[in-house]
Amino acid sequence: MTKPTATTNLSINQVKITSDFWKRYRDLVANVVVPYQYETISDKNDTTIGDDAFTDKEAYQDGLQSHAIENLKIAAGISKGKHVGMNFQDTDVYKWLEAAAYTLQYHPDKDLQAETDAVVDLIAKAQQPDGYLSTIFQIKFPERKFKRLQQSHELYSMGHYIEAGVAYFEATGNQKALDIAEKMAACLEDNFGLEDNKIHGYGGHPEIELALMRLYEVTGKEEYLNLTNYFIRQRGQDPDFFDKQNEADGWDNAFWPDLNTIGNEYYYADKPVTEQTDAHGHAVRCVYLATGLAHLACVTGDQDLKDAAQRIWNDIVKKQMYITGNVGQTSTGEAFTFDYDLPTDTDYGETCASVAMTFFARQMLAGDFKGEYGDVIEKEIYNGALSGMALDGTHYFYVNPLEVNPSESEKNPDKKHVLPRRQAWFGTACCPSNITRLIASMDRYLYEIKDNTIFAHQYIANSTTFSDGIQIDQDSNLPWDGTANFEITNPNNVHFNFAVRIPNWSRDSFKITVNDQVIDVDGKDGIVVVPITDEKTSIEVVLDMKTNLIYANAKVRANADDVAVQRGPIVYCAEQVDNPGNLWNYQLDTVPSFDFAYQEGLLNGVGVLTTNDATKVETEPDSESLYQFNQAPRRASTKLTLIPYYSWANRDEGQMSVWLHK
Amino acid sequence: MTKPTATTNLSINQVKITSDFWKRYRDLVANVVVPYQYETISDKNDTTIGDDAFTDKEAYQDGLQSHAIENLKIAAGISKGKHVGMNFQDTDVYKWLEAAAYTLQYHPDKDLQAETDAVVDLIAKAQQPDGYLSTIFQIKFPERKFKRLQQSHELYSMGHYIEAGVAYFEATGNQKALDIAEKMAACLEDNFGLEDNKIHGYGGHPEIELALMRLYEVTGKEEYLNLTNYFIRQRGQDPDFFDKQNEADGWDNAFWPDLNTIGNEYYYADKPVTEQTDAHGHAVRCVYLATGLAHLACVTGDQDLKDAAQRIWNDIVKKQMYITGNVGQTSTGEAFTFDYDLPTDTDYGETCASVAMTFFARQMLAGDFKGEYGDVIEKEIYNGALSGMALDGTHYFYVNPLEVNPSESEKNPDKKHVLPRRQAWFGTACCPSNITRLIASMDRYLYEIKDNTIFAHQYIANSTTFSDGIQIDQDSNLPWDGTANFEITNPNNVHFNFAVRIPNWSRDSFKITVNDQVIDVDGKDGIVVVPITDEKTSIEVVLDMKTNLIYANAKVRANADDVAVQRGPIVYCAEQVDNPGNLWNYQLDTVPSFDFAYQEGLLNGVGVLTTNDATKVETEPDSESLYQFNQAPRRASTKLTLIPYYSWANRDEGQMSVWLHK
Repeated sequence: MTKPTATTNLSINQVKITSDFWKRYRDLVANVVVPYQYETISDKNDTTIGDDAFTDKEAYQDGLQSHAIENLKIAAGISKGKHVGMNFQDTDVYKWLEAAAYTLQYHPDKDLQAETDAVVDLIAKAQQPDGYLSTIFQIKFPERKFKRLQQSHELYSMGHYIEAGVAYFEATGNQKALDIAEKMAACLEDNFGLEDNKIHGYGGHPEIELALMRLYEVTGKEEYLNLTNYFIRQRGQDPDFFDKQNEADGWDNAFWPDLNTIGNEYYYADKPVTEQTDAHGHAVRCVYLATGLAHLACVTGDQDLKDAAQRIWNDIVKKQMYITGNVGQTSTGEAFTFDYDLPTDTDYGETCASVAMTFFARQMLAGDFKGEYGDVIEKEIYNGALSGMALDGTHYFYVNPLEVNPSESEKNPDKKHVLPRRQAWFGTACCPSNITRLIASMDRYLYEIKDNTIFAHQYIANSTTFSDGIQIDQDSNLPWDGTANFEITNPNNVHFNFAVRIPNWSRDSFKITVNDQVIDVDGKDGIVVVPITDEKTSIEVVLDMKTNLIYANAKVRANADDVAVQRGPIVYCAEQVDNPGNLWNYQLDTVPSFDFAYQEGLLNGVGVLTTNDATKVETEPDSESLYQFNQAPRRASTKLTLIPYYSWANRDEGQMSVWLHK
Repeated sequence: MTKPTATTNLSINQVKITSDFWKRYRDLVANVVVPYQYETISDKNDTTIGDDAFTDKEAYQDGLQSHAIENLKIAAGISKGKHVGMNFQDTDVYKWLEAAAYTLQYHPDKDLQAETDAVVDLIAKAQQPDGYLSTIFQIKFPERKFKRLQQSHELYSMGHYIEAGVAYFEATGNQKALDIAEKMAACLEDNFGLEDNKIHGYGGHPEIELALMRLYEVTGKEEYLNLTNYFIRQRGQDPDFFDKQNEADGWDNAFWPDLNTIGNEYYYADKPVTEQTDAHGHAVRCVYLATGLAHLACVTGDQDLKDAAQRIWNDIVKKQMYITGNVGQTSTGEAFTFDYDLPTDTDYGETCASVAMTFFARQMLAGDFKGEYGDVIEKEIYNGALSGMALDGTHYFYVNPLEVNPSESEKNPDKKHVLPRRQAWFGTACCPSNITRLIASMDRYLYEIKDNTIFAHQYIANSTTFSDGIQIDQDSNLPWDGTANFEITNPNNVHFNFAVRIPNWSRDSFKITVNDQVIDVDGKDGIVVVPITDEKTSIEVVLDMKTNLIYANAKVRANADDVAVQRGPIVYCAEQVDNPGNLWNYQLDTVPSFDFAYQEGLLNGVGVLTTNDATKVETEPDSESLYQFNQAPRRASTKLTLIPYYSWANRDEGQMSVWLHK
């Protein structure tokens, strides 16, 4: 195994986000979301689980509340009772803890920290002496530990704790939080590996890989790198591994019988990851694995792993990603389907999968400074991932469709997963805490440092201090305005490169001024590098905020003859509340002209696009026949109003569509 | 209960179909289809069941062949073994027998008749002394007879036998065939009714109602009318009837657990039929029930039943029917969804449901001479129903989609029911024999007589003799040509009315000449009546065979901005084999001009439509990005070729679409 490449001396001290847009979200997370989710997982509020696609009703026969904290108490011997909820119920606590840890860094809160410390203590008590922790197995199936990895989510759950433990240690210095994580890693080292006395397997739901890389990052211990390398390289070496375990555990003993025989492709375990050529199977499984893979490849420099990560990336981003950044085209197994298959009315686009794409993009970016990775982070945080949370912070989408007709969601069972409203909670509650931890950790997505270069790849206003006294202040009002000013203070006259991303929506037209001098750069690869030596450098980046019409590749059936509208990073949609009648009766003219207006009082402040270059079918009241011969529907000019996709479903329930007829 | 209205003296003696189009199909049925299906249900060929949406794999664990005849032999005590197949496996034999009976009327065949006689003998042996017959219950669950009517299909199965027995008696005079049917009806009378000692229930899958009406028709026995009346009026009176039976039989004892709790709407048993306002639930269940209802209403004249039938009709035809005549919008439960919800890529459109629509339309027509009922018969027999059978007669569609992309069928599980090829057989093999019996009985769909009027409602060339020596010869070459000549011979100078239907696609433009005199009629209600008194009358009807563009109602989301193409009764589609590339990249111009050419050598002879008034996206080979900014795809003029929908999927596998972008 290749040694990690040496790191440079440039490093980040502290990132402070000053962006109005993101401060609102991050304050909401600290003040509302984290408290709400803690009450929910502690069964202290009235929130009950809603209907979602993957809820096993049997798991909740003893109650419709989360029970996630309670399960840990039972495992810790503090409470008595049955395990309630899914195999991975513990992760609702861990992801909440991780999100809380991030908020403590920008929003110190002693009361919260007392709660989180107590939760860490509880987790420590629930953990077995050997490091194992999965409450459902400890409470209900102690004899089946590590014996049905395809479905057990044990490694997935421990992976989520490791992420949380690392984050909490980083935020608060709580050593116990890190110790639990290291004990878990030790448990996995004891049980998994190529040695004869170990299990030659891996988890059905990847997550441990990216988590162990975080543990490696914070501890620097090479054993965690090696363990990640094992889990990634061993996956799919024996395509029958899961079947053999299932057979030994008893086929009838499945947690989800449907998943017994769904095929190893679903678990991305049909062949070794280095032989895989595309993204397939369960979307979140695939992208979590790809995140760990990219991170490992970046650290080790192994070309075969880099290539494998690149193949997954290319297939998703160039062939299977919705314009909003959502991924996973089918509700059947929450899965990818195939290249250019992007149906808009039955799609899944799980919030977790979009969040996972930001993780994956960040690791790809760390490995290779290219604009496209930052573009995807930007796409997710302003669109596909962000739509997972309501403006109130306490309602969430699991599924993020591109087109919704509430009547179809209600009355056509093929669209029952396409909910027109965000829900208070889910039986499988992976999404709420996932979008929460992403927003709470947004400061980690602004800069990437490699060798001698600081890459400021997101246009989110911030004030950040680096090593050597370097400070960068970004003043910008994206996503609504296109001008960003960077004030770089470099008191020690360090020689380094400062790089900015030219977003794909502005690559044909942008202007960069360095100390009042316009510089001539082409922005190829979406990145512009400016050498810095002076004590003070002012850089202005002016991006092109015109309204863009987006056309899908001609291989995409679903969007033939349709257009989407994007301004800056924001993908727009039409909502029925702004556009009366059925949305499918609107048509954009060939070259529509849009007016943009920021509306302070609407949807917590959004930029609204309106156009009069549209028509709408005039429904004739006497035309009741289902089909008309040779009579094209009459159209009349109309106004069309578009709002940011992320902000839909925060007003009256109605139809929504990202793609518009033209 | 109202007495039946008196019948007039006008009656049909014999209908001989002379239409080239239909003779080919009917000869195929006699020479190929009926022998093939007999071998299949007798397990004498290699045909095995294929995958279909509703196949219970467990039912076939003892073999992948039909076993339908063998089940009867086991029930009859002639063979030993287990029941194999679905609850309703017996009906594959009965519907085959019914189809064979019809063929014997136009294609006498002593060998076939020996076989069918033997099958009747076998069925008689399998029938219990009390008249009961359902092989799965006799063999596997003798103690559960009539105890789980929601799922048992016992009445459905016996209904299908009754239809077959009546048809076979009518065709051959075989009394035993009728006796079996009457014994079954007696068994039902003994077990069902409002009396205290009887079951106050009905079958989960309607069919017995329309079958008992057939038995009433041929026997004239009022008890069968009364029994039909009971089954129809009792349905839904106690919405908990099925639940109570299921509870008593044991919930865990379900044949299809999913159907236990699906809701009584699914069975059209949520309230009394006279209180129902729309078509809902399982499409075939609903339309079979509606057929029996319409027939009963026609005979009794009961206005509440007529109204109930009319409401179902209106909801289907005006709000839930595909342009091809297919019905049932979702594969989930093979069901209706809701008004104006007509998705083209996930639709179900079961062949049986289209066949059922011809039954329903025929009964509505018998009750009320209106063109719209004949229009639907015509729509089904040339489109939605006919597409269920391949041109070779031995491959069948269960699902008849309006749009197919084979890659999606293969790789997107949401479309796995949308098969791009017809199958040799199915686990649930209801469709093959259903389309077969419809074609074999097509002669029953040409005329309807009421009071003093003979209504020749289909343009299918035939030579038919009536009472009083009346003979009508229709010479026409529909669906390809629009001129039909009727030669009416009336040797006894009987005074009667002759009526023809003006199809909805020709209602604005047609010409009728009676003995060389053009008559001035408006064709309102789609019917033109000509009084006949002379010994010889020649009537020429010239219909408008222009190519029509069809636009869907603006309430239909799926067809917004699309058009369909119809010429005469034939709905056209584009197939990829004629139109290279992806079909969704074609666009019809606003006012396209089509050339029509009958191609003798293509698809057993079809009328083909071509136009040069279309464009297609020119895919740029270097344009590999998934989304393009502000660059509308370039289009170039192209030729577009359309073939009749019924004939698709008889050449190379590829994409198909009925609706075209415009």
